[in-house]
Amino acid sequence: MFYHDGKLQYPVRVDKPNPQFAKLLQQAIGGVEGEIRVCLQYLFQAWNSRGPKKYRDMLMETGTEEIAHIEMLSTAVALNLEGASMNMKEQMAAANPLVEAVMGGKDPRHILSAGLGAMAADANGVPFNGSWIIATGNTASDMYANVHAEASGRVLATRLYELTDDPGMKDMLAFLIARDAMHQNQWLAVLEDLGGPAVNLPIPNTFPETQQVSDFAYSFVTTSINKENSESTSGRWASGTSIDGKGAFHVRPAVPLGDEPALNATDPTVHAQQQQMLLSDSEGKSFLDKAADFIAGS
Amino acid sequence: MFYHDGKLQYPVRVDKPNPQFAKLLQQAIGGVEGEIRVCLQYLFQAWNSRGPKKYRDMLMETGTEEIAHIEMLSTAVALNLEGASMNMKEQMAAANPLVEAVMGGKDPRHILSAGLGAMAADANGVPFNGSWIIATGNTASDMYANVHAEASGRVLATRLYELTDDPGMKDMLAFLIARDAMHQNQWLAVLEDLGGPAVNLPIPNTFPETQQVSDFAYSFVTTSINKENSESTSGRWASGTSIDGKGAFHVRPAVPLGDEPALNATDPTVHAQQQQMLLSDSEGKSFLDKAADFIAGS
Amino acid sequence: MFYHDGKLQYPVRVDKPNPQFAKLLQQAIGGVEGEIRVCLQYLFQAWNSRGPKKYRDMLMETGTEEIAHIEMLSTAVALNLEGASMNMKEQMAAANPLVEAVMGGKDPRHILSAGLGAMAADANGVPFNGSWIIATGNTASDMYANVHAEASGRVLATRLYELTDDPGMKDMLAFLIARDAMHQNQWLAVLEDLGGPAVNLPIPNTFPETQQVSDFAYSFVTTSINKENSESTSGRWASGTSIDGKGAFHVRPAVPLGDEPALNATDPTVHAQQQQMLLSDSEGKSFLDKAADFIAGS
Amino acid sequence: MFYHDGKLQYPVRVDKPNPQFAKLLQQAIGGVEGEIRVCLQYLFQAWNSRGPKKYRDMLMETGTEEIAHIEMLSTAVALNLEGASMNMKEQMAAANPLVEAVMGGKDPRHILSAGLGAMAADANGVPFNGSWIIATGNTASDMYANVHAEASGRVLATRLYELTDDPGMKDMLAFLIARDAMHQNQWLAVLEDLGGPAVNLPIPNTFPETQQVSDFAYSFVTTSINKENSESTSGRWASGTSIDGKGAFHVRPAVPLGDEPALNATDPTVHAQQQQMLLSDSEGKSFLDKAADFIAGS
Amino acid sequence: MFYHDGKLQYPVRVDKPNPQFAKLLQQAIGGVEGEIRVCLQYLFQAWNSRGPKKYRDMLMETGTEEIAHIEMLSTAVALNLEGASMNMKEQMAAANPLVEAVMGGKDPRHILSAGLGAMAADANGVPFNGSWIIATGNTASDMYANVHAEASGRVLATRLYELTDDPGMKDMLAFLIARDAMHQNQWLAVLEDLGGPAVNLPIPNTFPETQQVSDFAYSFVTTSINKENSESTSGRWASGTSIDGKGAFHVRPAVPLGDEPALNATDPTVHAQQQQMLLSDSEGKSFLDKAADFIAGS
Amino acid sequence: MFYHDGKLQYPVRVDKPNPQFAKLLQQAIGGVEGEIRVCLQYLFQAWNSRGPKKYRDMLMETGTEEIAHIEMLSTAVALNLEGASMNMKEQMAAANPLVEAVMGGKDPRHILSAGLGAMAADANGVPFNGSWIIATGNTASDMYANVHAEASGRVLATRLYELTDDPGMKDMLAFLIARDAMHQNQWLAVLEDLGGPAVNLPIPNTFPETQQVSDFAYSFVTTSINKENSESTSGRWASGTSIDGKGAFHVRPAVPLGDEPALNATDPTVHAQQQQMLLSDSEGKSFLDKAADFIAGS
Repeated sequence: MFYHDGKLQYPVRVDKPNPQFAKLLQQAIGGVEGEIRVCLQYLFQAWNSRGPKKYRDMLMETGTEEIAHIEMLSTAVALNLEGASMNMKEQMAAANPLVEAVMGGKDPRHILSAGLGAMAADANGVPFNGSWIIATGNTASDMYANVHAEASGRVLATRLYELTDDPGMKDMLAFLIARDAMHQNQWLAVLEDLGGPAVNLPIPNTFPETQQVSDFAYSFVTTSINKENSESTSGRWASGTSIDGKGAFHVRPAVPLGDEPALNATDPTVHAQQQQMLLSDSEGKSFLDKAADFIAGS
Repeated sequence: MFYHDGKLQYPVRVDKPNPQFAKLLQQAIGGVEGEIRVCLQYLFQAWNSRGPKKYRDMLMETGTEEIAHIEMLSTAVALNLEGASMNMKEQMAAANPLVEAVMGGKDPRHILSAGLGAMAADANGVPFNGSWIIATGNTASDMYANVHAEASGRVLATRLYELTDDPGMKDMLAFLIARDAMHQNQWLAVLEDLGGPAVNLPIPNTFPETQQVSDFAYSFVTTSINKENSESTSGRWASGTSIDGKGAFHVRPAVPLGDEPALNATDPTVHAQQQQMLLSDSEGKSFLDKAADFIAGS
Repeated sequence: MFYHDGKLQYPVRVDKPNPQFAKLLQQAIGGVEGEIRVCLQYLFQAWNSRGPKKYRDMLMETGTEEIAHIEMLSTAVALNLEGASMNMKEQMAAANPLVEAVMGGKDPRHILSAGLGAMAADANGVPFNGSWIIATGNTASDMYANVHAEASGRVLATRLYELTDDPGMKDMLAFLIARDAMHQNQWLAVLEDLGGPAVNLPIPNTFPETQQVSDFAYSFVTTSINKENSESTSGRWASGTSIDGKGAFHVRPAVPLGDEPALNATDPTVHAQQQQMLLSDSEGKSFLDKAADFIAGS
Repeated sequence: MFYHDGKLQYPVRVDKPNPQFAKLLQQAIGGVEGEIRVCLQYLFQAWNSRGPKKYRDMLMETGTEEIAHIEMLSTAVALNLEGASMNMKEQMAAANPLVEAVMGGKDPRHILSAGLGAMAADANGVPFNGSWIIATGNTASDMYANVHAEASGRVLATRLYELTDDPGMKDMLAFLIARDAMHQNQWLAVLEDLGGPAVNLPIPNTFPETQQVSDFAYSFVTTSINKENSESTSGRWASGTSIDGKGAFHVRPAVPLGDEPALNATDPTVHAQQQQMLLSDSEGKSFLDKAADFIAGS
Repeated sequence: MFYHDGKLQYPVRVDKPNPQFAKLLQQAIGGVEGEIRVCLQYLFQAWNSRGPKKYRDMLMETGTEEIAHIEMLSTAVALNLEGASMNMKEQMAAANPLVEAVMGGKDPRHILSAGLGAMAADANGVPFNGSWIIATGNTASDMYANVHAEASGRVLATRLYELTDDPGMKDMLAFLIARDAMHQNQWLAVLEDLGGPAVNLPIPNTFPETQQVSDFAYSFVTTSINKENSESTSGRWASGTSIDGKGAFHVRPAVPLGDEPALNATDPTVHAQQQQMLLSDSEGKSFLDKAADFIAGS
Repeated sequence: MFYHDGKLQYPVRVDKPNPQFAKLLQQAIGGVEGEIRVCLQYLFQAWNSRGPKKYRDMLMETGTEEIAHIEMLSTAVALNLEGASMNMKEQMAAANPLVEAVMGGKDPRHILSAGLGAMAADANGVPFNGSWIIATGNTASDMYANVHAEASGRVLATRLYELTDDPGMKDMLAFLIARDAMHQNQWLAVLEDLGGPAVNLPIPNTFPETQQVSDFAYSFVTTSINKENSESTSGRWASGTSIDGKGAFHVRPAVPLGDEPALNATDPTVHAQQQQMLLSDSEGKSFLDKAADFIAGS
């Protein structure tokens, strides 16, 4: 169950409203790197959590913190939009070259659909999508998703930081950048808590390694037909002990082990074209003929 | 530029076609954990790659390998669907209880839209979505996305492995499970090649740490109002040196540092309701009055 | 800012796990009528709220309550899935007719993607979509969206109630059905608090009614060409005083007041076909000829 | 069955083409508040209509009228785009600062994809989405959806009205604003025709109220931990007779009635991590041990 | 402007309701091959039509006919669902193996969201998507899209025809199959009306062919590295006069004409990792050094 | 299986980076007319191909060529973005009117999400969608989809050509324009290879024409109620031999052959409103009464 107070986790102040920046901030709310995603991701991971209770509790707490981040950013959007509508109205009435510039970099739906408020969408107005929420039921897999979510979130926040000179906005972002630093460390700490790479890899660690085609479990496969120009085999991934400590990296050129696939002629009831009832030109026997053969017992 | 031969990277054999399993396999083609996603993700990361050439070359090769995996899985879907249509037709004509079972667990679009072939969709028929392709321009951030992609891909493949008894399908999946093991190791090897966590964290490592609100960069924030029941602070993330080695984890209860947000009354040109022109009841002064005051210079 | 305790708002008990019912419950989590939608809808309405503070505070509280409903339903999904995977494995190995039934009505991604947990998706596995979150910045408009959200939510919950015999599930739904009853009343109470229909309609009440084409503001337009069979004009909407009390309903047959639209021939730089450069056959003059005329000053 | 004439319901005239305004108009065509949505929403409600025939007939007529509104707006978009392409070509060739402004606020797909015509998308180019079409099979629920659709549609139209000075466009919008006023009244009139709130609420009115957890059917639940600052309980929704006349509003602080959820350890076949096989640290018994116990009959 | 009568274009009769078939029919309503798509596609092509008026008029008429097809199919869905809910309720209460079969092949949202009516979604419940509506502004391009739409529509209808034994449904489909035959002929007739392939190809026919890289305008490029196994060059597309009569088909092996791309090191303000500031290992000069050189004027 | 070399199929050179043009180019990568779509479309058609092997081989080769086109365009986007970030930073700090222009026509996610690289999205940032990939299992139907894909692709490329003066970009586009000309010819050549229209039409050619409602198979249906103004019947589609040579075009006014649909009153378990239990006013008998009659055996 959840509670709130009306106050913000950290102050949100906009010294000079800027509707263009409001548009950019939407990426941090409803974008794939944004706060709605991490909020729901951590909460679903908590609600679905099976295993030691400490992981569930910890995920729930950080998920709850992220609601406060959506709140901060939505407030920042609303404050950046104050005055935007009157301003656009004037400009639409102004001389031609300015008219062409006036909406540049603004999200028109901030006025048309949201009446100067934040939306559950990204910087291009593409709606938030639930498919971005990762909760696989495998904790180690989820932790790597979380590290990436916080890495791309912090990259986004630093880019936003570069694109504003508003001291209030820079201060808010500096806070979020710090939280993203913590959360990167936090999810990597969970992996350490679970025993670290040697224990966890390859994920899932509950599938018997003898049942995979082991020969290919540590091969870097090169598909290049132009190997002299490629530097792909000069890195850590091409030789030496594997990261999980269970094998040795080596290079293997791509070679097909399978044949050309050969599908049967198509089933008459799916109504392909008649010409597709023929098998390959070389064989020249139709599906219908084969069916006749089968019925005749041959 | 790209080339192909018509042969498969690894043999694909279906001993007993099963349209239900064809539906499940779609998740590995067009789902968020699937091969279209990793294929395009690695290729876009390669094409956008800035920095040492070896990373671009390596990403391109693995991205190219993944096309062969989409090909294998699509072939497996088509082979599992052979015979499905005639079979459904018969069953639709059969007695009632069977009719109700007949389509259970099949994707009707495998017949209706694809004519017994694979689609660019997941196991529920939801189309592949380009937003899943992560290429942030920051190599370390991308590598964590890649580790997760391969972890969830291998988790998916092992689940599929459990759900089939077809020896051909088990063999194909055992190959893909091995490749996903390699690729998890590979992306972690790139992170090591880049210097490891101490060098890379927090991502991005090009933002001056002095500019974040450092006080919050290593705090685990607890939002629980029921702390005696919570085990959230008993893990590695709550105390000790941080994973990046630059700070010490500590626990901090959630306390609001900001005030309640106060937006101005709304701009008349966005046509909210008249009643919203009033500010809070306690203040009782309308936006229009304030505008009048401003014009009057007070 | 937000807090949580680990306990549920209302008990969630599953007496007999049923993965089919888990699939149905997803509609109440990630569907258009579901709890993620109302949760984020009320929170965004709160965060964007301009006008008297009591509305913001009230929206925030109900939005916060809804997080607890997502939590309850996600827990219900996870409990309904316990045992589902082993069960499916066995059935996939069983005799043929059963194999065909086995996945009927289950969401395969509950196993494949979520490892027996809830997802941010609807009963067909279609992901939650941020476009469903309505926060127009006009409070009266938003309240009608909210009434509908709770009406369709309660309709959904009663349908789910009909489709289960599990006493635990019936009890949980009976609680949610009651909350949806309250929330319908609540949003209609806000409209009354704002002065009721006469004050609020037509929404927005800040657009001067003299500026609309008033002649059409209370006309029921009939498009039927078969009027003797239609009962469309026998209802409250066809005669009597309008609901806003500002006009009288009357019936008006559909008659075009405009002409056929006439677009110019297309601009050469968008590369339509050459044949489209001709205007209508009757005129027979090409855009290019007209351009030539213009240049020649005729 | 449907018919048309080629003429418009109301004249559409563009005095000065403006591609930026064409982009804004898209929201009224393919946006969530737009005419494709209401058109299909009313038609699907009609086609699925069960109950007295007058509702079906009336829904069909208004749904048919809305096709004419899509037509008017699409014509308006096409007329606003005339000349846009040549103009952009010139500007792309011009000096640098202008080049940067040139595409500001235009939808590039109006040229690239539509060749200067309207699209089934919103003002940001996000495609129309069928999930917005509400037809629940419960007439009262649908009517509230319809009132909101027309309220947000009229809010949108008044915002567009503010953002243009083109007399032709203002005239067209003034007509649509009047129709939206009628339609708000119309859907509320249907609710009155059905007996009004006391009869219809809570929706659905076919679920026995004794089967809900009645204790919570009129409670306003406060989640605030900061009650002295909250004005949430000072409104109509917190005390007095409920809108449906069947209860009395009262305030109830949020208190958890349920326990902390406890999921079992995860099923081995979904391949979570091994560490998740352990239940909570305090219990310390693994799922596999429990399974062994079960087999041993203990 | 549009009109309707309440009657159907062709009788819709369901002899034995079948909710599984209702689910399949959804593909013909809201799927990519369905009637909402062709309806809106032809209407948008009409509304955006520039050039001879006869094309606009004809497109409008066929678009209007298609509304009647959505109506027929929606009616068919509603009739197929009659009785479905009570039936499911009983089955959910029945013994276990039947419970597992009961929802097989039904769309749960037909009950949960639509209350036994049709939806604007496909056979998997994926919502209709406006991006499927093609109206490029180039008539010849659009006509090929229309031919395909009717071809895939007729393929879909014949597959549905195979999957039902209901005489009423077979009769309705036999009508739609005939209309799709006409419409395929109709769109090809438009292409003939426009002058046929020699005049129209390559589309657009307004781009000077001298400005394309003509050397590649009639080459079939082979990417196979396994040419002895490929039959790709034995078809009509590999030799002989081209279909547009303007060139001769010939085969050309894929050979790269470009170099390896070389992007500069990344801009510091997008916060990639520091390691990406280095150019390729062989060059070894960082972006920052280069910037310094530039400032120093070298 | 697939291979690559690192070189481009054709040189990609950007003489003067232009982030606005980078945004436009995205339509050719991730838009509905773009290269990801044709690439995956041809590959899925190949992988699902049933019938003579030459079609599979040929589809695979052209699908493989298209990967190289995504690569070229992604490189072009990255090159057009070089310098964009620093430039935007400066401008955001500059005087107000310029600030408003600065982001005009840029995709902010090119900086925020992609760090100056290409994305799998269209010119408005809408993600690539797998539903655009057409592979019906009927070769003739697919070929018309392919002709349209290349026609709209070439139309798009010529529009991009008009909107740039960069010689490098014009050269790259001139190459792609030539390839699209070839591919239009190629897909039409496949149709000829399959026997041409007389053999293939109506698609599918495996459904017995006697089973369609033949009377309507060559009728142009007019829905106009304003026939004197319509030129719809003056084209090739209204008279003469049909394109498939199997019938004669003729005109038929739209006349309903069916009745008004009459659904039964709704099932109580889906919880519509009570008022919907009544059938039409004229009949006045409720569903529940009818059920009672049935039970009583009347």
